[in-house]
Amino acid sequence: MNITTQAKKVKESSLILMKLTNEDKNKALLKISESILNNKEEILKANRIDVENAEKKGIKRSLIDRLLLTEKRILEMAQACKKVAALDDPVGEILTSWLQEDGLRISKIRVPIGSIGIIYESRPNVTLEAYIIAMKAGNTVLLRGGSDAYNSNTCLVKFIKAGLKETAVPENSIEYVLDTSRDRVSEMLKMNEYLSLIIPRGGSSLIKMVANNSTVPVLETGVGNCHIFVDETADLSKAIEIIDNAKTQRPGTCNAVEKVLIHEKIAGKFLPLLKKRMDDKNVLLKGCERTIKYIVVEEAQEDDWKKEYLDLILGIKIVDSVQDAIDHINKYSSNHSESILTENYFNAKIFVNSIDSAALYVNASTRFTDGGKFGFGGEIGISTQKLHARGPVGLEELTTYKYIVTGDYQTRP
Amino acid sequence: MNITTQAKKVKESSLILMKLTNEDKNKALLKISESILNNKEEILKANRIDVENAEKKGIKRSLIDRLLLTEKRILEMAQACKKVAALDDPVGEILTSWLQEDGLRISKIRVPIGSIGIIYESRPNVTLEAYIIAMKAGNTVLLRGGSDAYNSNTCLVKFIKAGLKETAVPENSIEYVLDTSRDRVSEMLKMNEYLSLIIPRGGSSLIKMVANNSTVPVLETGVGNCHIFVDETADLSKAIEIIDNAKTQRPGTCNAVEKVLIHEKIAGKFLPLLKKRMDDKNVLLKGCERTIKYIVVEEAQEDDWKKEYLDLILGIKIVDSVQDAIDHINKYSSNHSESILTENYFNAKIFVNSIDSAALYVNASTRFTDGGKFGFGGEIGISTQKLHARGPVGLEELTTYKYIVTGDYQTRP
Repeated sequence: MNITTQAKKVKESSLILMKLTNEDKNKALLKISESILNNKEEILKANRIDVENAEKKGIKRSLIDRLLLTEKRILEMAQACKKVAALDDPVGEILTSWLQEDGLRISKIRVPIGSIGIIYESRPNVTLEAYIIAMKAGNTVLLRGGSDAYNSNTCLVKFIKAGLKETAVPENSIEYVLDTSRDRVSEMLKMNEYLSLIIPRGGSSLIKMVANNSTVPVLETGVGNCHIFVDETADLSKAIEIIDNAKTQRPGTCNAVEKVLIHEKIAGKFLPLLKKRMDDKNVLLKGCERTIKYIVVEEAQEDDWKKEYLDLILGIKIVDSVQDAIDHINKYSSNHSESILTENYFNAKIFVNSIDSAALYVNASTRFTDGGKFGFGGEIGISTQKLHARGPVGLEELTTYKYIVTGDYQTRP
Repeated sequence: MNITTQAKKVKESSLILMKLTNEDKNKALLKISESILNNKEEILKANRIDVENAEKKGIKRSLIDRLLLTEKRILEMAQACKKVAALDDPVGEILTSWLQEDGLRISKIRVPIGSIGIIYESRPNVTLEAYIIAMKAGNTVLLRGGSDAYNSNTCLVKFIKAGLKETAVPENSIEYVLDTSRDRVSEMLKMNEYLSLIIPRGGSSLIKMVANNSTVPVLETGVGNCHIFVDETADLSKAIEIIDNAKTQRPGTCNAVEKVLIHEKIAGKFLPLLKKRMDDKNVLLKGCERTIKYIVVEEAQEDDWKKEYLDLILGIKIVDSVQDAIDHINKYSSNHSESILTENYFNAKIFVNSIDSAALYVNASTRFTDGGKFGFGGEIGISTQKLHARGPVGLEELTTYKYIVTGDYQTRP
């Protein structure tokens, strides 16, 4: 099958999937779980080929770790199927319904988006995770994974399809683009006839490329230049714990903090404490011109303020007020997650009301912006755009709605 | 000011507008209403220049009618301001809020989208209507109107801005692009830094151009290839009234019916009745190959089934079953509005559940898909895409949400 035939099948099967019950979808999820477990040897074998190829190419260790499947990771995938099966089905919910004066009843009902194109990079577990979340929400997927994970991905798709056999969910509800040429990505981005949405999952250059070239609507995910503002009334020792958690617990994630803004009144006291902890955790600091008067750190450049490091690097800027902090964040942030640490009620209020980001925190780590942590049971990414979905994209965010209007032969006066 | 400066101002003022109260916005709406009424002579004078230029250029009558402002139309605009002021403010609504086990409170709160680019064609009243709806929902706008309405539009914007003086709503919350070059539209479509959304309002070629070229997210509106399926159990005389209403009441609107599908069992009885009424109303019929065996009509071509006529033309196709009707609609529809006329419960159910359009009707005219008729108090268009908003786009649809998370220095375990 070429990519156009695949896209057509994905679209056609979305019209079947959208009508299936929660029970139908859950049965399929459990069958997929079994199929993955029963075929783990073959999946591991396929993955070994990808890993060996990557090693031969000299790909760096951290990327190979992302590529690697282990028995534990396969077990986690199988468990993820069961976990998603246990989630409530968002489809069919009546969002609102009213009776008009003329007797028409209008109901706004949650329905699947339809067929979704997903373009992603090296982690093969995305193949399964993205599909099961999309499918539980009633959507079918056309997947285009990274070429490094080609053998792992195609093997996983084979056993997902095997699991779907003899279930009500069509096997064509998942299709994987076999041709690894970049041209196929360009084709996907113009498939308005067959795809209702494209979700890129990966680094910022992939996301930018997709957003700039797609005529299909895009859900941009995952670029996080997150800020923590330490106000003058913050509890300084707790602030150190929050920054440590937000920076070092998993520095490669989009909800990790990248910049800390510090109220000038506490800079002298707080900066040495922060430097000590960050030194202990091997975090490289880059400070504004005022910061370097207090502690010995590299000076941050203008382009640092926009950067998402995804690494053990932290930018530090001294600000004069909560309003300064707000202005800096509204200017440089990627509008993902920002936190204020304060004991001042009005500063907390103005901070959350004035910043135009997906998640605003008062006295908490930015690391909580996550579908799992928010209780969504899973996510396909964190949206940083304003249209459709903001923040964690879980099952509900992969749905839309339609209006059903029932009458007695009413005409418009 | 050049367009980039304007866009920057629109973005900056969105950060002010997003924090204003309902009272602030309503005061501004009433001031705009006064300003428009007090300056109606000057607005009419500016409009006269546009109309005369259009007449000189030999532009067709129906387009000149759309361009024309009259004292009555200005009065309607002034009243629209008061009507929008009377609507509930969607901003600030808590959509959902929950307390997590770790003590974090997460609240999902409705907020404005921000700054919106609107690209539209000849009707100058769009200038005011689009702005007041967007602004009431807390958004600022960068407007690019058609060159035919240049004098009317710039004059309206002048008096809107005059109305905003001495109100809390920034004058830069509305900016009109003065340079009529097409290049400015191309620039707008790439202004991701300043605009969160682009809404095209106009014909299908404008909408397609915007959707194909914009890197800013787009809300596609207004292409309606709407269907009515007359099932074998429909009340035939009521069906005639519905089709008449849906086709002829305002044939130029996107919710007018363009295609009628007829169950083969009633075709022989129904088609002559339909032909008689359509002849009386000067509607040109185009029938499928089976239709032309019953009545004398032009034969429809394959490309007719996809067309939005926006005129007194109606396509007719005979189908064998409700499933045939569903398949035809899912294949050819623009996914706007579709109606089934039936007295069969299961056929009604399968029709509304199987068709992937924004509004599905049982026994009612498609003409009801409208922000006013749905009780939204106004609309900026009818969305035919699945992302973000579907169907009428009113105040709520011009908002997004953000998460506010309050804690006591929680870190992620």
